[in-house]
Amino acid sequence: MVGGSVPVFDEIILSTARMNKVLSFHSVSGILVCQAGCVLEELSHYVEERDFIMPLDLGAKGSCHIGGNVATNAGGLRFLRYGSLHGTVLGLEVVLADGTILDCLTSLRKDNTGYDLKQLFIGSEGTLGVITAVSILCPPKPRAVNVAFLGCPGFAEVLQTFSTCKGMLGEILSAFEFMDAVCMQLVGRYLHLASPVQESPFYVLIETSGSNAGHDAEKLGSFLEHALGSGLVTDGTMATDQTKVKMLWALRERIAEALSRDGYVYKYDLSLPVERLYDIVTDVRARLGPHAKHVVGYGHLGDGNLHLNVTAEAFSPSLLGALEPHVYEWTARQQGSVSAEHGVGFRKRDVLGYSKPPEALQLMQQLKALLDPKGILNPYKTLPSQA
Amino acid sequence: MVGGSVPVFDEIILSTARMNKVLSFHSVSGILVCQAGCVLEELSHYVEERDFIMPLDLGAKGSCHIGGNVATNAGGLRFLRYGSLHGTVLGLEVVLADGTILDCLTSLRKDNTGYDLKQLFIGSEGTLGVITAVSILCPPKPRAVNVAFLGCPGFAEVLQTFSTCKGMLGEILSAFEFMDAVCMQLVGRYLHLASPVQESPFYVLIETSGSNAGHDAEKLGSFLEHALGSGLVTDGTMATDQTKVKMLWALRERIAEALSRDGYVYKYDLSLPVERLYDIVTDVRARLGPHAKHVVGYGHLGDGNLHLNVTAEAFSPSLLGALEPHVYEWTARQQGSVSAEHGVGFRKRDVLGYSKPPEALQLMQQLKALLDPKGILNPYKTLPSQA
Repeated sequence: MVGGSVPVFDEIILSTARMNKVLSFHSVSGILVCQAGCVLEELSHYVEERDFIMPLDLGAKGSCHIGGNVATNAGGLRFLRYGSLHGTVLGLEVVLADGTILDCLTSLRKDNTGYDLKQLFIGSEGTLGVITAVSILCPPKPRAVNVAFLGCPGFAEVLQTFSTCKGMLGEILSAFEFMDAVCMQLVGRYLHLASPVQESPFYVLIETSGSNAGHDAEKLGSFLEHALGSGLVTDGTMATDQTKVKMLWALRERIAEALSRDGYVYKYDLSLPVERLYDIVTDVRARLGPHAKHVVGYGHLGDGNLHLNVTAEAFSPSLLGALEPHVYEWTARQQGSVSAEHGVGFRKRDVLGYSKPPEALQLMQQLKALLDPKGILNPYKTLPSQA
Repeated sequence: MVGGSVPVFDEIILSTARMNKVLSFHSVSGILVCQAGCVLEELSHYVEERDFIMPLDLGAKGSCHIGGNVATNAGGLRFLRYGSLHGTVLGLEVVLADGTILDCLTSLRKDNTGYDLKQLFIGSEGTLGVITAVSILCPPKPRAVNVAFLGCPGFAEVLQTFSTCKGMLGEILSAFEFMDAVCMQLVGRYLHLASPVQESPFYVLIETSGSNAGHDAEKLGSFLEHALGSGLVTDGTMATDQTKVKMLWALRERIAEALSRDGYVYKYDLSLPVERLYDIVTDVRARLGPHAKHVVGYGHLGDGNLHLNVTAEAFSPSLLGALEPHVYEWTARQQGSVSAEHGVGFRKRDVLGYSKPPEALQLMQQLKALLDPKGILNPYKTLPSQA
């Protein structure tokens, strides 16, 4: 996505694939300690057998390593409910640039003995140290998972649906995703997935996870009744069985795949104030006109995270010029983030300044110089090339 | 508690009391941005009027400043549900030792543009920079709050009650506190608070917070029925109205006050694996015998956080010698933390090594040297005196 984990020049690749052992799991607290090369999906299976879930889930779960998830501060589909890895990661073991093993692999929920050093390495994309083991807090496995898929007449109604469902679903809300009509057309055209609801300008996927199936269904039912009755939502469907739940999630999760079949894809992963989240899509669509094949917006609305994607027959420097720095400048004017969850890597290191002031960039350089004075850890990545 | 905020030698006191303005509040996302000198309780009132709550709550809320809460990574009574400030604080404005203003005051849930610098300052007790403004994510205000107060026949039953209630109460569980019989005797003797349940070796306070009063009462009701039926709990009472809820919480919250009336108090704030949480209390009670007036254990069991307190007629070096380093060594053998939520400050800076390896202490010193080379920020605190 941003080229954070691919070698670009003369790098040495270090694999943690064989560091794939679970070191401990505590069945009262739900604290898992494992090596960095464990695959996320395998960890999910491991803790689910013990009635817990991993606090993060993402499309790449079948191949990504937990060490990489932590190094990139991965977001994903459970962020709305279980929050950031800065909160759920309890400890790390990290090998520093000089070979020192930094053992901060505690499995305690609370520990205020000095600076919380592990935080430095969460999201630093391997540029400050190599994560070799992770201690992470797993939430109890929900007994009931429900999904609702809704059509909304406009973006204002999407926002109001979000506010309403936060109030009515409260603690059981575990995802609030949205996609626009063009996304639905593309998953239909390329993947032959049919919309389960009437054609609408916007679609919303709501997931609940709770401990009591009856209570959850009742909450979701009254919310849907209210949303349909008040015109926030024009059509909706609900799923409780695994097969239909997966089918509804596929509409949202496979958008990226449909886009890649449509042509070359320009991808932006932005954090914006929710009420302005879709304005950039409308703006870019008008700006590019017929030069783009499709301009779409979708993403984790509950987290204020928009995926703005533009497709074209092929890569073209002039289309890129029409997109950048325009998209970054627009985002900066809203005090947004030019990289919400995908990180910086190689491609975005020179646009950091749109979301961070010079004083912050300078302190990042100082931390890099302190921890990796020879610049051997994931070089050419994360930090601006000239500073 | 640990002398983190009191001057000991030649320090200059810097007050943020007049920086007490709310800068913005976003009613869809619940993101509050405010100056560092805002009093926690006033912020609570402010967001509660808007149907949100602060993600932290503690006994000192009437006087503590949000800037200090963040600087000390305060834990408190809502930690079990809403997690650490490392997850809920979204942005900070910090003045560095050289006067640079570091503006990382974003109000975005997700932002992966470079190193997450704000994390450095959360819990660093003012030794790396002065926090001047805070952006924090507030959860929606629960519509129903219930409290149950239970008597348990032994610590094994306390642990099993915790596991059972995590399963049966799931997402609505917001606090799981415990206290031993001696705590109850002391709040009775000095504060004239009567136990609402039969005399028991241990007492547990469970709080639920949810969006549907009927559902929550039903969940708590079936849990209580199960707990009483299976002998995990020998007696219990439940409260839904504000007055009784406050009365039950007072039994737990006022233990520190009762202890201070009993004599000089030696205080330890430990994180331990939950299943060993009470062993240190039994151990210390046997070790001190008649030399102590009372040895008590209570705290945030759900977070693995024990407050071990010992009272005596007056301070005595020999009693201190019997306690330290014994308590720290015992904790270190369990891979626990010698300071769970109270921080390091002046008093605990030389015991950090019981919970952190030399490599971590060295990196802390390097970060201090980088950010505060002249040592002007909260000197004599947090870091070991000789390193």
